[in-house]
Amino acid sequence: MSPHISMITLGVPDVAKATAFYERLGFAKSSASQEAVTFFKVGSVVLGLFGRDALQEDAAAGNLWTGNGGTAVAANYASEAEVDATMASAEAAGARILKLAAKAFWGGYSGYFADPDGHVWEVAFNPFWSVDEQGHVDLPE
Amino acid sequence: MSPHISMITLGVPDVAKATAFYERLGFAKSSASQEAVTFFKVGSVVLGLFGRDALQEDAAAGNLWTGNGGTAVAANYASEAEVDATMASAEAAGARILKLAAKAFWGGYSGYFADPDGHVWEVAFNPFWSVDEQGHVDLPE
Repeated sequence: MSPHISMITLGVPDVAKATAFYERLGFAKSSASQEAVTFFKVGSVVLGLFGRDALQEDAAAGNLWTGNGGTAVAANYASEAEVDATMASAEAAGARILKLAAKAFWGGYSGYFADPDGHVWEVAFNPFWSVDEQGHVDLPE
Repeated sequence: MSPHISMITLGVPDVAKATAFYERLGFAKSSASQEAVTFFKVGSVVLGLFGRDALQEDAAAGNLWTGNGGTAVAANYASEAEVDATMASAEAAGARILKLAAKAFWGGYSGYFADPDGHVWEVAFNPFWSVDEQGHVDLPE
């Protein structure tokens, strides 16, 4: 298997409502979107929003999806100030702040918010990692 | 907020075991990894493996994480044959096949597997999307 990540799909109860939240955050909806599914091009990957029940059924994941949780999507920024600004924007857009940005045990600075459907995002500055303009990390091999 | 996705972190009960599974799938562990956290560079994003309890605590997500589910990571390939080969590799590596690859209602071809901790992956060929060598989709604006 050639390891790829092309898309991260969040299962949401209402695609239109969830789309509106992410648009408030600044994500731009692709014209490839349809009524039942929204695609955002985010750097080189795609963020998808799809009905949670439809995704669970499509994936035949009924037995596994006992609730919600277990995954976090992270957005890295180049400074603590950008992290603070991003957390403030997220709150203004309707996110629930789980943890205000603060110094982290691993030497960086990060906060967490949840989207209105409970999907967890980390917003982080890692002084040991460089981040390009698209938010991609230059990780060593 | 400048929309970024830098990393997807999967919360796992045993980081070493989960790391071994993803290494069997062909993911290469970054030297930035530590005992408590594994980082894989996957194209331009990072796949992280971190203790589920530690992630839940770090994110202050206790009330939200009622179980598992709600998110799927997708890897797109350039043909149905590559999807089949990837699904077979995943099964050989210890994945649980949720749905054998088959024609999908949206005109493509996809299957789903779960990693040993229940994180859901979709393996897909979408004839309407072009995919580069890193598995990144050329999504229209």
